[in-house]
Amino acid sequence: MRSLPIILFGVGGVGRALLRQIVEQRSFHALQYGLRLELLAVCDSDGAVIEPSDGLDDVLIDEIIAAKEAGRRLAQHPAGGVQNDLYGIVDIAGRAGTVVVDCTATDATVPALLFARDQHYKIVLANKKPLTIDQEVYDRLTSAGVTNGSGMGDNGEGLAPVRQLSHSRWETTVGAGLPVIVTLNRLVSSGDEVKRITGTFSGTLGFVMTGLQEGKPFSAIVREAHRLGYTEPDPRDDLGGVDVARKALILARGLGWQLDLANVEVQGLYPADMDGLTVAEFMDALPRLDDHFQAQVAEAASTGKVLRFAAQVEDGVCRVGPTLVYGESPLGRLSGTDNLVEFTTRWYNPNPLVVQGRGAGTDATAAGVLSDIIELAYTA
Amino acid sequence: MRSLPIILFGVGGVGRALLRQIVEQRSFHALQYGLRLELLAVCDSDGAVIEPSDGLDDVLIDEIIAAKEAGRRLAQHPAGGVQNDLYGIVDIAGRAGTVVVDCTATDATVPALLFARDQHYKIVLANKKPLTIDQEVYDRLTSAGVTNGSGMGDNGEGLAPVRQLSHSRWETTVGAGLPVIVTLNRLVSSGDEVKRITGTFSGTLGFVMTGLQEGKPFSAIVREAHRLGYTEPDPRDDLGGVDVARKALILARGLGWQLDLANVEVQGLYPADMDGLTVAEFMDALPRLDDHFQAQVAEAASTGKVLRFAAQVEDGVCRVGPTLVYGESPLGRLSGTDNLVEFTTRWYNPNPLVVQGRGAGTDATAAGVLSDIIELAYTA
Repeated sequence: MRSLPIILFGVGGVGRALLRQIVEQRSFHALQYGLRLELLAVCDSDGAVIEPSDGLDDVLIDEIIAAKEAGRRLAQHPAGGVQNDLYGIVDIAGRAGTVVVDCTATDATVPALLFARDQHYKIVLANKKPLTIDQEVYDRLTSAGVTNGSGMGDNGEGLAPVRQLSHSRWETTVGAGLPVIVTLNRLVSSGDEVKRITGTFSGTLGFVMTGLQEGKPFSAIVREAHRLGYTEPDPRDDLGGVDVARKALILARGLGWQLDLANVEVQGLYPADMDGLTVAEFMDALPRLDDHFQAQVAEAASTGKVLRFAAQVEDGVCRVGPTLVYGESPLGRLSGTDNLVEFTTRWYNPNPLVVQGRGAGTDATAAGVLSDIIELAYTA
Repeated sequence: MRSLPIILFGVGGVGRALLRQIVEQRSFHALQYGLRLELLAVCDSDGAVIEPSDGLDDVLIDEIIAAKEAGRRLAQHPAGGVQNDLYGIVDIAGRAGTVVVDCTATDATVPALLFARDQHYKIVLANKKPLTIDQEVYDRLTSAGVTNGSGMGDNGEGLAPVRQLSHSRWETTVGAGLPVIVTLNRLVSSGDEVKRITGTFSGTLGFVMTGLQEGKPFSAIVREAHRLGYTEPDPRDDLGGVDVARKALILARGLGWQLDLANVEVQGLYPADMDGLTVAEFMDALPRLDDHFQAQVAEAASTGKVLRFAAQVEDGVCRVGPTLVYGESPLGRLSGTDNLVEFTTRWYNPNPLVVQGRGAGTDATAAGVLSDIIELAYTA
């Protein structure tokens, strides 16, 4: 039996689902993989529960889940304490082989993550933020966008830094548990030439585009999605496309491109002059967009195409927004909230390599995080 | 720069494509990954070229490719020699960190592969045979179907054997370069419950089923496929479904099931009484099957379904043959020669996780083998 020490940042939906799955599957991983999953520390934004010697037991983990679901903070937990410094938690709790798992949605974790890397700990990110700020942070956390020519490498021989597949995984930052990043990394590492990546990475926007294709008015679809809880409280957070832009950036950087979020061309589903409205005003003003989208869908249909809210990574350009695709392509045939990504490469051409399925959900995401953790248990 | 020593069994189409890709991409892997791909030995069925110190240089590799394409044997090559014993080649050429790559299509490699494992070398299989004979051989080569309860493990602690993701990769045995096995392994390692795997794993049979759906007679489709070189010289080698059955077995064993090829229920596309015919007689006799398939397709259509030649792994049963699927499912919408696999699991339900794309071709397969090799460069 081998210990697999874990430090978790973030006890929101995904973090709690991960904790639940760890409790549920401890014996599975012990029996089948000979791995003892040891949770050394669990942190929220200002508190932590730490158990560096043996890890948190199942009872304590269940208590933490219950406390967080009740809206309490770890700083107030009997076994917990205040921490404003994730860096310090990694320093106290970490030991050789530790996997630091970031299930937050903030870039405040970055110093702690970089410290963890410096300690040669491994990193799993469900959090897109650290990978979509500075290129240098992406490079240091993933070692995937690193290309030869700058500074010193991990190989200790004074050579330029190189891509390493041993230190980190970030599968769930794009398409939740779908095998998108592993596919990209495999294509890149084989030397296959990736010519184009096209994909839909928002179930909410998939719902909207499917509704438009069925002839429903844009305003009605958005109101229905809002009512059903498919959108963020402010639907503009989805309709603006910035979350999809972050995913496109992660894909582009995975190809070795050097670019920033500002370089991603984003075309949202509402005009900039609607940014100043309150949510209620925005919902009321939606019908003025109906004709525009109806015309777009009709124009697309007249050429055998359909409209998808897609990310496209091709020819050095990273673009996110309403996109015309052939009705008979995998993306064109997609309906509903599933995510889908097409890789067109030297060897997958003209038919792309396609990965499709549910691209959201706390359980599917947590399961993907757990796969990442287990993969890293076997890297060096 | 780190050495990545490789021993290659098999210089057929995939083996030669791999050699070509290694030559073409040596500098890419050196620059981007800091890995020096060193080919220590290349073996065909009765000869080998060995260069255990520095590995074969590009000129020699090009010569080997040319010689094999001209139909010559490595035993006759000026730099080569006779070998009837791959075991001996591994013994002479191997060193710590060696990846032994099997691109043959024979189970004659098994003793050498098991010896390589005993030496703690790593293994990449494009060859389905070693994984579809004895369960014990599968278990020892992949360490993936190994469940607790029998014998000693690799962990040296006297515990039962456990799944290990460090020693081997066999991605291209199912769906060529498509990320099928990695997806399966990720689902299993996350503890997700895989309820059903359904897939098409033969471009040739995809071509046949698509033709049937378009209303063409079975005999005409098979003759066209034969003429175009889509089938084996004897089309029964495809139509019988045994190759698909091997892939289904590899998927089922990947779930931890203990079963043999004889346990896979195979229903081919021609009756057993046509096994005794010559190829010419078989081609002549094909029209007597036309009505049968026409009726099957019509019956399927009457219930909104279509006929696919699918593998199904579900409820302890592994089945291969003509299968009714909903026209609106990913598999039902598939047309042509692409492979497609659906994983229905606890978290991917009712919509499955889908992987789709070209599932054959020497270059796509060789690229998948190369991805496997690079992944193993980072495992321990």
